[in-house]
This record gives sequence, C-alpha cells and structure tokens, in this order.
Amino acid sequence: MEKIVEQGLLYDFYGELLTDHQRHIYEDVVFNDMSLSEIAEEQGISRQGVHDLIKRCDRILAGYEEKLRMVEKFNQTKRMVEEIKTLAGTYKKNGDMSLIDRIEAISEEIGQL
Amino acid sequence: MEKIVEQGLLYDFYGELLTDHQRHIYEDVVFNDMSLSEIAEEQGISRQGVHDLIKRCDRILAGYEEKLRMVEKFNQTKRMVEEIKTLAGTYKKNGDMSLIDRIEAISEEIGQL
Repeated sequence: MEKIVEQGLLYDFYGELLTDHQRHIYEDVVFNDMSLSEIAEEQGISRQGVHDLIKRCDRILAGYEEKLRMVEKFNQTKRMVEEIKTLAGTYKKNGDMSLIDRIEAISEEIGQL
Repeated sequence: MEKIVEQGLLYDFYGELLTDHQRHIYEDVVFNDMSLSEIAEEQGISRQGVHDLIKRCDRILAGYEEKLRMVEKFNQTKRMVEEIKTLAGTYKKNGDMSLIDRIEAISEEIGQL
C-alpha cells in the first residue's frame, strides 16, 4: 500500500490515541500535504524535530495495529461486504440462485471474523 | 449489557493492550469465573489488590473503547450482516425481489460505517 494511504488509514483508526500535538502535526503531513519545513516553521521547532515526531507517530500507530489488527479486519470485512453487494447486483441480472447461497455464506463468514 | 459479557467483549478487542499480569488476572475473573479470594491466594496479593487491579483494567479498557469505538462498530456491523443473512434466507422462501434491493442497500451502508 502507498505509504501516505497506509498512514491515513492507521491514523483514522488509532489517531485518537495520539496527543493533540502529535495529531496536529501528523495531520499536516498526511492529510494537508505540508512539507516538513513548512510545519517546522509553523510550530517553531526544527525540521529534524518534525521528522522525528512523524517517525514516532508512525511507530506508535503501527504498534497499535500490530496488537489490535483493526485496519486488517476492516479491510477484510470491506472486501466481503463489497462482494455481497456485487453478488446481489449480478443476481438481479441473471437470477442465478447459487449467488444467494453465496451471499448467505459470506455473511456467515463475516460474522465469524 | 450484562457486566461480565461487556468485560469479555472489551477484553477481546483491547486485551492485547494490557500487561501480561493484568491480562492473567482479568481472564481469571471474566473467563474462568474465579473469585477475588481465589485469585488473591493464587497470586499472593491481597483481595483488595485484586479488586483494584480489575477496576483499573475496566477503566483502561473502557478508555480505549471511548476513543476507538471498536466494540460499538463491531456490534453494528454484526447486526447488519445478520440481517443480510436473514434476508437471503427469506428470499429463498418467498422470492420477494425487494429483499435483494435491501441486501444491496445494507451492504452499501456497512461500507460507509
């Protein structure tokens, strides 16, 4: 996965566990596309300081994912639910009853994740 | 929700964020149905110490839920996926096409949670 996308997803799930200060700076990098120098100037800290803070946030967020696997489970569920939606749409076109069985089976699987 | 069920759910989601020691004692109470006195004896600490540790774990786990809402989202998703399963089963009996539309709509909703 592209790094910025991965950072965004991890932040969406675990961002609440960072401090306000960390969140502010992490958002500037990941969502507002600001450069380290711009942020350093805005915050009155060194460019290296910003760099270290981002690295530290990356490690904290990755640490939570390693333990809680929310992003992984979210992606799994999302894929399966999208499949259900596709199957329902296809069924409406071709009336193949085995697609309904497949929908039942997938919803059963999701319930067990 | 019954307290022990809620504790179990919170533990399933966030237990990895407790220390080994906390996990061990929390599991004894929540899953192994041991009394505080039994655990106190096993661990060589006071009954009050066990009581305080459990309270502390309850607070830690509730704090994570307040920030991350994993249990809440999990329960929402679970309810909706169960509905999809029921709708698919009912459709096989009565062939009411609107149920298929409902399945599509619910899977769309889940994707947006």
